[in-house]
Amino acid sequence: MKKVILTGDRPTGRLHVGHYAGSLKERVKLQNSGEYDDIYLMIADAQALTDNAEHPEKVRQNILQVALDYLACGIDPNKSTIFVQSMIPELTELTFYYMNLVTVSRVQRNPTVKAEIQMRNFEASIPVGFFCYPISQAADITAFRATAVPVGEDQLPMLEQCKEIVHKFNSVYGETLTEPQIILPSNKACLRLPGIDGKAKMSKSLGNCIYLAEEPEDIKKKVMSMFTDPNHLRVEDPGKVEGNPVFIYLDAFCRDEYFAEFWNDYSCLDELKAHYQRGGLGDVKVKKFLNNVMQEELRPIRERRKEWENHLPDVLDILKEGSKVAKETAAKTLEDVRHSMRIDYFTDNNLLK
Amino acid sequence: MKKVILTGDRPTGRLHVGHYAGSLKERVKLQNSGEYDDIYLMIADAQALTDNAEHPEKVRQNILQVALDYLACGIDPNKSTIFVQSMIPELTELTFYYMNLVTVSRVQRNPTVKAEIQMRNFEASIPVGFFCYPISQAADITAFRATAVPVGEDQLPMLEQCKEIVHKFNSVYGETLTEPQIILPSNKACLRLPGIDGKAKMSKSLGNCIYLAEEPEDIKKKVMSMFTDPNHLRVEDPGKVEGNPVFIYLDAFCRDEYFAEFWNDYSCLDELKAHYQRGGLGDVKVKKFLNNVMQEELRPIRERRKEWENHLPDVLDILKEGSKVAKETAAKTLEDVRHSMRIDYFTDNNLLK
Repeated sequence: MKKVILTGDRPTGRLHVGHYAGSLKERVKLQNSGEYDDIYLMIADAQALTDNAEHPEKVRQNILQVALDYLACGIDPNKSTIFVQSMIPELTELTFYYMNLVTVSRVQRNPTVKAEIQMRNFEASIPVGFFCYPISQAADITAFRATAVPVGEDQLPMLEQCKEIVHKFNSVYGETLTEPQIILPSNKACLRLPGIDGKAKMSKSLGNCIYLAEEPEDIKKKVMSMFTDPNHLRVEDPGKVEGNPVFIYLDAFCRDEYFAEFWNDYSCLDELKAHYQRGGLGDVKVKKFLNNVMQEELRPIRERRKEWENHLPDVLDILKEGSKVAKETAAKTLEDVRHSMRIDYFTDNNLLK
Repeated sequence: MKKVILTGDRPTGRLHVGHYAGSLKERVKLQNSGEYDDIYLMIADAQALTDNAEHPEKVRQNILQVALDYLACGIDPNKSTIFVQSMIPELTELTFYYMNLVTVSRVQRNPTVKAEIQMRNFEASIPVGFFCYPISQAADITAFRATAVPVGEDQLPMLEQCKEIVHKFNSVYGETLTEPQIILPSNKACLRLPGIDGKAKMSKSLGNCIYLAEEPEDIKKKVMSMFTDPNHLRVEDPGKVEGNPVFIYLDAFCRDEYFAEFWNDYSCLDELKAHYQRGGLGDVKVKKFLNNVMQEELRPIRERRKEWENHLPDVLDILKEGSKVAKETAAKTLEDVRHSMRIDYFTDNNLLK
């Protein structure tokens, strides 16, 4: 069996270091591992519209931004297929048929849907499209016969729903769909990077993100203003590294060679942590180091992004070409689905048989 | 503005005299009136699958049956476009985008959905697809820019939902969709014909239907066994015509000329009713007359049906050709919808604008 990855992002804003640490970095690694036959990266505009129906322009504007972020991080269009969800009508057909295999109460029990509804203050006024997005995601995953879906831990219930649909479909209509597996990020610190204010989630509206396209002086300003251990008042006090955003970022991004380069008082992160914990190390010093780390990590990304920004028509061509490839794959799966459901009436005059 | 009709049936069984009186007869009249620019007749297999997901074969088998019933009743493929819903993928795309414009609680309040859920004993286990079928119906209606939808009174809440979607879409994305109007049957008796057992609904499982394809002896057997006024025990007793299936059927099908032909004791239905009401008229006599009426009404239908049954490949060709025409129309509407939502990124490189 082919090894296939499907993953993606909603184009509702530029991507930030949380996306990078949590998934993009991993995707680039998977892409370059040579272990996968096909890698599909979906810009999920149709899914973004399920809770942005009245702001289609916001979604539209961010499609190219997300594509630029992908390319900037090292996604290579020769190795990965980047496509735009709404350009693949086959996905809505699969969604339509899968909707018959899932009950309303099953979707209501989905913890991710529950949490998202709460987060968006939807309650009584959830759009039906948003309510159904786990089913639409199952269509996205199965359309490409993905065997591996690299996403965050919070997406586990989505994968469960997808597997249920695969089992139900295959048991009702015969073996047709491929069951996917989740790939969680290997570095635990990357699972969910907090905002620079220490809040659990980075979000544009909270203004607590460091974006991938951020300029050097802005990165510095943001890092130097970061929330740390609130009880670490004097330099000589012992400090806490657990739950301390500065150290969580270091866990996610620091490599030993950065010490040699920027701070040879230590040889690795554990030594730095030990000093901070026993006291005698000020936050400003640690932040300066983190700034150096972030500058190093983000510079090549920002530079690649600027280059691609000067070639937007090429980026559009990449999306067009990727969407064409993705459409062909999804159409083949849909053909199999229709054949299994025997709604291929006009093929070989099947309706007369 | 063009005058366009959209209507259709779920292919879950052969059509019966209830369908004929309630809608098919009206459709043929509308078709032959010359007042409509386009008439679309949809065999709603995808909708039928929403509550028959585990019985796709039942749905499949009935597609040709419904097409035969249409042709038998006088639907003329040169005047009306007969098509199969699942062959028009554009309908699932429209459904997908309309789902973002309707809330879950709005669908839950739909009285038809409520009633159907109860009827099917679904309750906690409603398939999501079935739950969403009012939205899917709105997609069907608007895809063809239908201005008129001839259906039964019970479908009024569906039309309301459709109009709401049209208004919402047009107000969010700009004037795009066409608002439909319902056309109710002119003959009140036709609104809902009871079963031959007097039960409100004709259904295959209750075995109380007279099918359009029924043989003469079976029509006779069914008519003669019909439920009448249960208090009309002796011929001399006064009888009730209200709620009496035999008279409801006569209201729906009897024409004055049938009296001249089969029972010249009366000149019209009112005279016959008056006699029955004052007493002295036995049920058997009335049933014999109804049998003659039904035989006359159903003979040409049955004969035309048999002819078409001998030409099934031609029927399939009609469905293929109709689905091709329907697909073109729906694709044009979808193009307008995508343009209004500005999700036409690749057209003229719109994404760069």
